[in-house]
Amino acid sequence: MSLLESVLEALGAIRSQAPLVHNITNYVVMNTTANALLALGASPAMVHAPEEVEEFVSISSSLVVNPGTLSGAWVQAMHLACSRARARSLPWVLDPVGVGATVFRTQTSRALLGHRPSVIRGNASEILALAGTDSGTTKGVDSTQGVESAVEAARRLAASGAVVAISGPVDVVTDGERWVRIANGDPLMPRVTGLGCTATALTGAFLAVGASPLVSASGALLVLGVAGERAAARSAGPGTLQLHILDELYAMQPELLRTHARLSLS
Amino acid sequence: MSLLESVLEALGAIRSQAPLVHNITNYVVMNTTANALLALGASPAMVHAPEEVEEFVSISSSLVVNPGTLSGAWVQAMHLACSRARARSLPWVLDPVGVGATVFRTQTSRALLGHRPSVIRGNASEILALAGTDSGTTKGVDSTQGVESAVEAARRLAASGAVVAISGPVDVVTDGERWVRIANGDPLMPRVTGLGCTATALTGAFLAVGASPLVSASGALLVLGVAGERAAARSAGPGTLQLHILDELYAMQPELLRTHARLSLS
Amino acid sequence: MSLLESVLEALGAIRSQAPLVHNITNYVVMNTTANALLALGASPAMVHAPEEVEEFVSISSSLVVNPGTLSGAWVQAMHLACSRARARSLPWVLDPVGVGATVFRTQTSRALLGHRPSVIRGNASEILALAGTDSGTTKGVDSTQGVESAVEAARRLAASGAVVAISGPVDVVTDGERWVRIANGDPLMPRVTGLGCTATALTGAFLAVGASPLVSASGALLVLGVAGERAAARSAGPGTLQLHILDELYAMQPELLRTHARLSLS
Repeated sequence: MSLLESVLEALGAIRSQAPLVHNITNYVVMNTTANALLALGASPAMVHAPEEVEEFVSISSSLVVNPGTLSGAWVQAMHLACSRARARSLPWVLDPVGVGATVFRTQTSRALLGHRPSVIRGNASEILALAGTDSGTTKGVDSTQGVESAVEAARRLAASGAVVAISGPVDVVTDGERWVRIANGDPLMPRVTGLGCTATALTGAFLAVGASPLVSASGALLVLGVAGERAAARSAGPGTLQLHILDELYAMQPELLRTHARLSLS
Repeated sequence: MSLLESVLEALGAIRSQAPLVHNITNYVVMNTTANALLALGASPAMVHAPEEVEEFVSISSSLVVNPGTLSGAWVQAMHLACSRARARSLPWVLDPVGVGATVFRTQTSRALLGHRPSVIRGNASEILALAGTDSGTTKGVDSTQGVESAVEAARRLAASGAVVAISGPVDVVTDGERWVRIANGDPLMPRVTGLGCTATALTGAFLAVGASPLVSASGALLVLGVAGERAAARSAGPGTLQLHILDELYAMQPELLRTHARLSLS
Repeated sequence: MSLLESVLEALGAIRSQAPLVHNITNYVVMNTTANALLALGASPAMVHAPEEVEEFVSISSSLVVNPGTLSGAWVQAMHLACSRARARSLPWVLDPVGVGATVFRTQTSRALLGHRPSVIRGNASEILALAGTDSGTTKGVDSTQGVESAVEAARRLAASGAVVAISGPVDVVTDGERWVRIANGDPLMPRVTGLGCTATALTGAFLAVGASPLVSASGALLVLGVAGERAAARSAGPGTLQLHILDELYAMQPELLRTHARLSLS
């Protein structure tokens, strides 16, 4: 089956199964990523207390870990949840938000790598920083680097077994051997906060129905890219774009993806 | 006075008094429930620190407690606030989000019952779990049960003195003797995160102007249902629906409610 | 250069430099103020952990401190961040949300004054309470006082070196000697949660490109007021208004500001 057909099959499964996706994510995007997961067809839950994360992992179909607004207790909960996910062979995705900006962020994201994420999704600066090849150019949470500059870092990270997704004008997804490039999306999208986090959350939805990590990350970036470019065509700015993307995720159809996908695999 | 006329009277009072509604609620819905309260005419505040919740309860007209994204310090604050509310005879509403999904959630919501909420609002799975008749089918925070399956559990919870509201395609509100059913709403609404939490917050607005618990819960579900079905008629998906609901809450008029209410009392 | 021309120059700098604005803000508005900063052209980050705030201040161009949803650890982080900002001569803005409503809030905001904010932005009730002339009429986080009643309190606060901005139907901004009045905006705006917090965040964007505190606070209130009145003209209610404001901030042009500004300086 082609990569695109595998994505479409998984999208159908998300809609028929409405899988429970456990998110430990940042305050900024809790509402918007919950809405994106609901729009696509999954059932999101935001659960972060150390008292309950392990139990919640046990009833979930995938786990999304996003240390975007960190604090000590949350880091502890992330480790508990990831450890339980690994013990259950539950797929999980890491979004190393702002890694490289502070020692605390860098140490946290690198430590979470020890729990072997199925997918790592970041922008180019984050992938470079996570791989230890940061050239000191991280600026907060926005990327200052082009996607292609992070390809070598992605190959290195993938060597540990994770699929690595770098988002940008052309997204790159790799397991270290195969390289997927997705040229969908719109230049207005970075003006909406948390669309990178949304790509990560949607990756969790694909993982939750048993799609492979490569299909999951590619599928998430593809549906978000196609939704984003269709939404941008009728949006006056980033405010309306944010809402129209949710509408487009809800309305996404296989035929639309077949028509609009700018996907290559090498 | 009929139930509907009591709701309309309370809605007028919310708009003329702009009562202060104290919310201790979850991160996912803080923005959207604050906006819903403002749109309807109330004055919301989100205040959770143990250092200040008791003092804040003392200047508020009602209290909303929603343990959707729990942690230890927040549970402590909820108990302090509920205890003070009860001491002041301040009406308060409990939203037992995800009760039944983890031991921590179940214990927290059941312990909060000890402070005698005026209203309990949940989906069918939550009402079943709170009453202790959960058949183990809770899936995260979304309901897996039909509303009517929770009627007996609602009756049991109501015996402790609370009005119980079960939301779903047809909402049920009861004080154990009278049974209100509200058939407004739209199937697209569950695709927006936190509309259940919004119903709970709006219940707080009705309680804040002295409406009875039965009128408050019925009024909140009714205005949200009518707003939702009117908003859905001009929304392409869940993204625009969320915003249009706020516009409809703001524009809600007695005549609209009289025309659209599908309300029965038995 | 006139005040308006200084605002326009700073706006151009925000768009060309995309400065990093460090926010320690409340849960309710994290998403919406991040989006407002992105729409205007800045690069926002929400970072609150005591472990990393000082390091993050060191890479940022300004700091926004908004104790709207307080807790002990956050207060500690605010002090660490403000102290580092002062040591670096980094401009910062304080939004004393709900000061006067509880002892905890009042003590926190007054203690933060010790770090010498560049700008203080609040509603009339908050400015009165912060200056110690609260007449006991604070109601949660919404103002119960007219702007002009807080002019004397603003003068007193400004004596410590901060520019003070009072928002309301006509905003007032002062350094104690010059008085700017801005009559833009729309009566629907207070029905959207967090637009005061948005004004504060946008002040941070202006400060981040080196604009003076007086120009920064005036510029933020002016662009938000003009965006708000243009957005209100095509919004059915507060839901769509919130999104249209983001679109208008994104589309804001010098010519629009020159045409629509109702700005006076005395």
